Amino acid sequence: MIRTIYREGGAVCILDQNLLPSWLKYECLSDYREVVTAIKELKVRGAPLIGVTAAYGVALAMDVAPEDPDQRRDYFEDATQSFASSRPTAVNLFWALDRMRQVFEAGSELSAAEIKKRLWQEAERICTEDIEINQAMGEHGRHLVSPGVRILTICNAGALATCGYGTAMGVIRSAHRLKLVDKVWVCETRPVLQGARLTIWELQQDGIPECLITDSMAAAVMQQGHVDMVVTGADRVAANGDAANKIGTYGLAVLAAYHHIPFYVAAPLSTVDMKIESGKQIPIEERDRDEVRQIGGTYITLPEANVYNPAFDVTPNQLITGIITEAGVIRPPYQENLLKVRGV
Amino acid sequence: MIRTIYREGGAVCILDQNLLPSWLKYECLSDYREVVTAIKELKVRGAPLIGVTAAYGVALAMDVAPEDPDQRRDYFEDATQSFASSRPTAVNLFWALDRMRQVFEAGSELSAAEIKKRLWQEAERICTEDIEINQAMGEHGRHLVSPGVRILTICNAGALATCGYGTAMGVIRSAHRLKLVDKVWVCETRPVLQGARLTIWELQQDGIPECLITDSMAAAVMQQGHVDMVVTGADRVAANGDAANKIGTYGLAVLAAYHHIPFYVAAPLSTVDMKIESGKQIPIEERDRDEVRQIGGTYITLPEANVYNPAFDVTPNQLITGIITEAGVIRPPYQENLLKVRGV
Repeated sequence: MIRTIYREGGAVCILDQNLLPSWLKYECLSDYREVVTAIKELKVRGAPLIGVTAAYGVALAMDVAPEDPDQRRDYFEDATQSFASSRPTAVNLFWALDRMRQVFEAGSELSAAEIKKRLWQEAERICTEDIEINQAMGEHGRHLVSPGVRILTICNAGALATCGYGTAMGVIRSAHRLKLVDKVWVCETRPVLQGARLTIWELQQDGIPECLITDSMAAAVMQQGHVDMVVTGADRVAANGDAANKIGTYGLAVLAAYHHIPFYVAAPLSTVDMKIESGKQIPIEERDRDEVRQIGGTYITLPEANVYNPAFDVTPNQLITGIITEAGVIRPPYQENLLKVRGV
Repeated sequence: MIRTIYREGGAVCILDQNLLPSWLKYECLSDYREVVTAIKELKVRGAPLIGVTAAYGVALAMDVAPEDPDQRRDYFEDATQSFASSRPTAVNLFWALDRMRQVFEAGSELSAAEIKKRLWQEAERICTEDIEINQAMGEHGRHLVSPGVRILTICNAGALATCGYGTAMGVIRSAHRLKLVDKVWVCETRPVLQGARLTIWELQQDGIPECLITDSMAAAVMQQGHVDMVVTGADRVAANGDAANKIGTYGLAVLAAYHHIPFYVAAPLSTVDMKIESGKQIPIEERDRDEVRQIGGTYITLPEANVYNPAFDVTPNQLITGIITEAGVIRPPYQENLLKVRGV
């Protein structure tokens, strides 16, 4: 399985996902600010992996933190703040930073060397747990799948979005191991093309039958009766089950409902944000207009074209058939059932 | 207004739309087979313009047809057959070829020179009429528009898809002249990006406020309450009102219905095919897989990725609020009301 992130001495090495599928290139970053930039520039992306990367980044930052406890605390705050402001939508980022903070706080009486060690350990634990969580989600999710299933997905909720195995792709992998999967329809996922670049690549690596379509073709494929279920990832799930995910997901959910196709969200419980009541409160990142105006650095329209470029949209809970988590498949009413597995 | 096609001596000159918006370049073709290729390669596109181009192409072919009546007829059949097999979905192509055939048949007793002259005249008449028809559609359509309207469209149903003015864009132009238009949302229209390349360019030429989005963003923009109506073109309308149009249109129609947004098709009566009962019988062109795999000649995915690339989809009549034609806005029941204006 592909490694998306690892520590090498005093550096955090990431797979530069902007170069996939043409180049498989790792970049080893020794300054945490480079890790922040890598997140902003989508070199690492995917809600779970953003969280893991921020955790590694904080550990990296604290490796060179001042010895003085007050200065060290300030340095910690600066570093976590840099990561917290890198991308606003995926809540796993804040969840991972909270875990690093707990380790940092708990170590206030310890030596600097011991704190550093524990922060690296925590980052690696988050990464290891992420794989286990994905595998548990896969196990729960594959029970939803009937033999010969044709699954439609968007973006990349795969090994590349996590420490390995994937969320939506984890479900697909677990189903594929049982030879249940007839085809995976992959929406290319404009503007950044994570479906075309990353998911197609992952599916081919694993020999899972894939078919690439433009985002605009999903409706026709559903109309023709070629889709049995939709499975996507999520960047943040509100307490009521509303789910933010890659732009285009909401449209797929409406289309799935219209065609009576079940629509599942696969997300670890770290993606659930019980602090917010509904999707209306999820901050939606708007990204650079040139992401839409350009493809591969070349303008596909007038350079001065007006553009709207939200990176995510919100699918209301009533369009979601179930949320696949490591604690099982959560069904409506989400408010009640998420509370049971997640607590407040 | 931009010219999309004209005759120059013994040549048909077309605007190469694959080069827009970077280059405004005309290509003068003196062999009708080059005109067929230009249609196949999307240098000229848009249902009405495909029809007009085929008409000019037939006139061009007959300019060098043999003198002998039998050989001349064979030559005519070969040329029309070449055009008829260039693209399958837009019915305007077959309608225009029928008009040319009527002129050819009616001239069987005339001199070769006279037939040639009449064929060129007919091609130019089809082109002139097309502009008048578009203007009439614009006039009917603008009555559907309230002040401050925000219209969403896909592909290019503009001056570039016709001999001038446009179908869906004609409605927008007529509404804009009365200062009714607040914004036009333009879906980029993957895979060939006619929205990003052509419609944005046309809107900017006319100073109509535009905003480019990826096709995947239409649902979110509707959810946020920023769309008052959807207007698209059509490539073929069946007798029951089902409408084939650029891939992605059907999805927009489902989304519009879900958000209670009126969905209009703007199409001249030459786009209505009374010979077929429903959209199920409309042949849907599947195009080269590299249209999806590549953008601007560069692969955006693995070159061996499996791809499905239908160029059109079919919107069932129950999702269409009205069909804007030169004879007025046709409302349901379409079977009955199309018959009234179109005959069999």
